[in-house]
Amino acid sequence: MAQMRTLHDALVDEIRDLYHAEKQLVKALPKMAKATSNSALRTAIEAHLAETEEQVTRLEEVFELLDLKPRAKACAGMAGILEEGSDVLEEDADEAVLDAMIIASAQRAEHYEIAAYGTAAAWAEGLGLQSVAKLLQTTLAEEKAADTKLSALAESGINAAAESGAVGAAPSKGRQR
Amino acid sequence: MAQMRTLHDALVDEIRDLYHAEKQLVKALPKMAKATSNSALRTAIEAHLAETEEQVTRLEEVFELLDLKPRAKACAGMAGILEEGSDVLEEDADEAVLDAMIIASAQRAEHYEIAAYGTAAAWAEGLGLQSVAKLLQTTLAEEKAADTKLSALAESGINAAAESGAVGAAPSKGRQR
Repeated sequence: MAQMRTLHDALVDEIRDLYHAEKQLVKALPKMAKATSNSALRTAIEAHLAETEEQVTRLEEVFELLDLKPRAKACAGMAGILEEGSDVLEEDADEAVLDAMIIASAQRAEHYEIAAYGTAAAWAEGLGLQSVAKLLQTTLAEEKAADTKLSALAESGINAAAESGAVGAAPSKGRQR
Repeated sequence: MAQMRTLHDALVDEIRDLYHAEKQLVKALPKMAKATSNSALRTAIEAHLAETEEQVTRLEEVFELLDLKPRAKACAGMAGILEEGSDVLEEDADEAVLDAMIIASAQRAEHYEIAAYGTAAAWAEGLGLQSVAKLLQTTLAEEKAADTKLSALAESGINAAAESGAVGAAPSKGRQR
């Protein structure tokens, strides 16, 4: 049981949790990209991998601003989400259904990060750590954009293809989120 | 490894995952409510517990519409998130810092559900299961409202109290999300 008395301590803990979450994602995203047969989805995942690598670097800048060495703390939340995501990749599914499930997994990961960066950015701002808050807000905006992009991909045909079992079907009417 | 060939199968899997997630939350929320010394936060968590119990019932209606018996599938994502949340309750923190961390945990759980219900509702709608989609969208709207309520509570003084170590401090300028 870690001692934790101040909001500053809680913020450091949150940054360490996110550092582990991002590092896990850097390992998981290439597996998702490899598993999809949809080129638009693969491109989106690969673009988010590059972004995630930058987000790791941005967290290292946060550690530096806080005068701390970068150190991860086991993030059980992201571990659980990616464990589910890894199970998905082993499913015996139609290509389009697999794509829909890959999007579902990736959106869970994005939402974990949206919640965690939202908290961390608010705490940093409240503590007067403007430079830290700004870095965290930059990543938060990227995570929200990545989630929106995944919803758009699902709506632009992947869900419809999964419904019909056909590749290249008309866009689905179902709205993701 | 489960066989999964159609989007309908994937939807059933998602509903079972959510059923487990909600049941875990029903057990976890009372512990969070008990741990906070802030009456507004306790009231909000207790209200969301009542809502979560209704959401379990709503999922049972979904199972019935799909002509299936309610059955949960282990949800590693929510399990991981609640494991982190349970660690928080054991922290040796100021009351206000603990409250800020409880909100952070609860928002991770809400965001997991926002992602999962968003996916399930879109799939159900795409599959033409309008009654199922409507039930899932109702819960999705509740989860988003619960998340917004938690952000408002954090911004209305809990973060500020946590920053200063004082109870009843002025509202924080930091925005949660």
